[in-house]
Amino acid sequence: MALRRIFVANRGEIAVRIVRAARELGIATVQAVSAADGAMLAARLADAVAPVGPAHATKSYLDKEAMLRAARESGCDAVHPGYGFLSENADFARMVEEAGLVFIGPSADTIRQMGDKATARRMAAQAGVPTLPGSEGRVEGLAAARAAAAAVGFPVMIKAAAGGGGRGIRVAASAEALDALIPQAAAEAAAAFGDGGLYLERFVAEARHVEVQVLGDGRDAIHLWERECSLQRRRQKVWEEAPAPGLAPSAREALCASAVRLARAVGYRGAGTLEYLYDAATGAFYFIEMNTRIQVEHPVTEMITGLDLVREMIRIAGGEPLRLAQGDVQPRGHAIEVRINAEDAARGFRPAPGTVTGLTVPGGPGVRFDAMLYPGCAVPPFYDSLLGKLVVWDETRAAALARLERALGELAVEGVPTTAPLHRALLRDPAVRAGAVHTRWLEAWLESNPLAP
Amino acid sequence: MALRRIFVANRGEIAVRIVRAARELGIATVQAVSAADGAMLAARLADAVAPVGPAHATKSYLDKEAMLRAARESGCDAVHPGYGFLSENADFARMVEEAGLVFIGPSADTIRQMGDKATARRMAAQAGVPTLPGSEGRVEGLAAARAAAAAVGFPVMIKAAAGGGGRGIRVAASAEALDALIPQAAAEAAAAFGDGGLYLERFVAEARHVEVQVLGDGRDAIHLWERECSLQRRRQKVWEEAPAPGLAPSAREALCASAVRLARAVGYRGAGTLEYLYDAATGAFYFIEMNTRIQVEHPVTEMITGLDLVREMIRIAGGEPLRLAQGDVQPRGHAIEVRINAEDAARGFRPAPGTVTGLTVPGGPGVRFDAMLYPGCAVPPFYDSLLGKLVVWDETRAAALARLERALGELAVEGVPTTAPLHRALLRDPAVRAGAVHTRWLEAWLESNPLAP
Repeated sequence: MALRRIFVANRGEIAVRIVRAARELGIATVQAVSAADGAMLAARLADAVAPVGPAHATKSYLDKEAMLRAARESGCDAVHPGYGFLSENADFARMVEEAGLVFIGPSADTIRQMGDKATARRMAAQAGVPTLPGSEGRVEGLAAARAAAAAVGFPVMIKAAAGGGGRGIRVAASAEALDALIPQAAAEAAAAFGDGGLYLERFVAEARHVEVQVLGDGRDAIHLWERECSLQRRRQKVWEEAPAPGLAPSAREALCASAVRLARAVGYRGAGTLEYLYDAATGAFYFIEMNTRIQVEHPVTEMITGLDLVREMIRIAGGEPLRLAQGDVQPRGHAIEVRINAEDAARGFRPAPGTVTGLTVPGGPGVRFDAMLYPGCAVPPFYDSLLGKLVVWDETRAAALARLERALGELAVEGVPTTAPLHRALLRDPAVRAGAVHTRWLEAWLESNPLAP
Repeated sequence: MALRRIFVANRGEIAVRIVRAARELGIATVQAVSAADGAMLAARLADAVAPVGPAHATKSYLDKEAMLRAARESGCDAVHPGYGFLSENADFARMVEEAGLVFIGPSADTIRQMGDKATARRMAAQAGVPTLPGSEGRVEGLAAARAAAAAVGFPVMIKAAAGGGGRGIRVAASAEALDALIPQAAAEAAAAFGDGGLYLERFVAEARHVEVQVLGDGRDAIHLWERECSLQRRRQKVWEEAPAPGLAPSAREALCASAVRLARAVGYRGAGTLEYLYDAATGAFYFIEMNTRIQVEHPVTEMITGLDLVREMIRIAGGEPLRLAQGDVQPRGHAIEVRINAEDAARGFRPAPGTVTGLTVPGGPGVRFDAMLYPGCAVPPFYDSLLGKLVVWDETRAAALARLERALGELAVEGVPTTAPLHRALLRDPAVRAGAVHTRWLEAWLESNPLAP
């Protein structure tokens, strides 16, 4: 069934991305807008807008009933959830399906399975995907946690079974630390996710974050190679690349093949990402979790493969089979994405809402700018601080770094401070230039490299 | 010899393009500025600026002595001439060489040979490149023109031997018309180019303009496939694509191979373009002329090959050999460029200088914007009306057309009228969508499709 009208159940730059992809496919869009978002770029570009509630996310973009009602009343036959908000909410996916609309993503069952980290880990192991040594499933109570930690070996990570996006993770270096952290982590997981379940995994000191993009139609699945996202602050990615620097071809092949095994095992439909921990010291990689949605950093994969992931998601949701065999996906060159957040990098990355009074967008070869920005637009204080992504492509990583530096030099956002100065500073660092960073590198670097105000 | 500091002997969007390429290579730039151009984008982005004279082109960007003096006095070791102005002036290239600077382009001898259309045509024929039946060399006087025209067959084109860019071309449908046009054409050629020499060629009624990009290092040469630029107004291209729609693979191979033969025969150095007339009715192609410089439309080739042509020009000028073998140049997908001129398309394309009061640049996947624009910038009345180029890439031509329509919908230049409405209207035309146009199609279309004011 070809889709005719898509409800964009998100905001910000990803809403713009979805509207653009639908427009190119000749599909109309209705943009969800909270009371704070009536003038946002996606609302200006969409064919229509539908109010979904007040400025509070819980009463608008996170309100399942309000979102589904708006989708139905605006005559949409499909819902694109973007990332964040309701994108990995199995109940919402189920409600959309039961209302007779198409949820542009995997089935509610797949979302639920992969959303439970312990279940996902078990299914990954069954599909022959390496996982970190850890508790087999949830640990219930302190005694079980102690036993599991002893088997796994310290230091261990304590993770919320229902968590995601790096939230609710702690590291215990010893049995004493574990005793203190387990009750605390359980209480916080219960408060944050409505589920106090925990599980344990071995902690790798200098781990790189490598992830594999997959695409499935429910019958078959392929991979679109990997991305590296090791530059993170507070477990939020700030810089992403494809391919992962310095990964040996054999490791890359094994990694990507493992991702396809899991995607096939679960009959995956749509775009998904398997996140791995890569231990560069040993060359081992371990499955961490699967994100059953489009990722913020999907453009770097698009830049090296020439594919449009949001378009493919929409096509598959409309009932089309995968257009591509694995051999059709030929990566070319190197892409880097840096996140432009409305944050004052020189003042502890304090969120900085406001009005964009001026905007200069970099141009020229190999430069892509995906953003919610236009001159005069408001950046409301109620949401995630991501304004957009500056993405560059070039033949080699060294050339892409030079192009990124050139493009960052041209980018000017006036009226709100952004994280662009962070990226300019990172570009000068030898470890970043060598691609020799791990997921905790940036926080240490920031302590010894304060950004000038 | 690696270059350290490039003098940008041009203005507008191509100057921005050169500054960007140099910046990414770690090479400094000095931007030539006339009195009208001190605040132009290239001047803001370059490392330094050098005044070259008043607002009149003949007293600044076309003044060989002034340009070379500014290049020397600003400590440059190379000159990039861009397109237009002095880019195909063999005397200027020679002066640069004799001053011990590097001219980023072919040798003065090559420029001179290819700049004389009759010589170029003879060398092409010697290299086995098909040429249009025409006079062998210049025709001197009316009697010789009559004899040549009778041999070629009417209708014939009368071209200025020293012309270029479509200037100075007339069509004679009969011997009587020839008698009237020859003296007129000779007088105009003498006035425009300082050389009244003429030559004749067979006129093809529905010719397509197809051209081949070549790249040489003086020892070897390769092609970067072809472009189609049949949508023209007053012989100025307004829309360019790569690859050429509907060209049979065997015709494409033969066309590109012929271009490489001529480039090798002349020991070509740098980026160059062989322009052909393609007769879709017969499948025959005929060499017309060679442009010994970067072309306005080079980005479509970059988009399908992943190569940076201006970077390659700079590398080769710095003494590096060709980095690529022919087999390394693998085209992917389809690219379209539309020219955004400061012209009022609804009022006979009247040039429309002024101040850009607002600017919204399209973003997202597969969109590139190469322009001289920034909010508040001035568009002076003294020069060519080209403001920039909107370039899109996608997997297929159909997808690229959809993307172009989407991107044109986002582009907004406030304060000066542009040719964007022309492109939006062209996108709706079945002949354009089918790629079934020829070089005189647009002018006829404009007569029956007046653009709304």
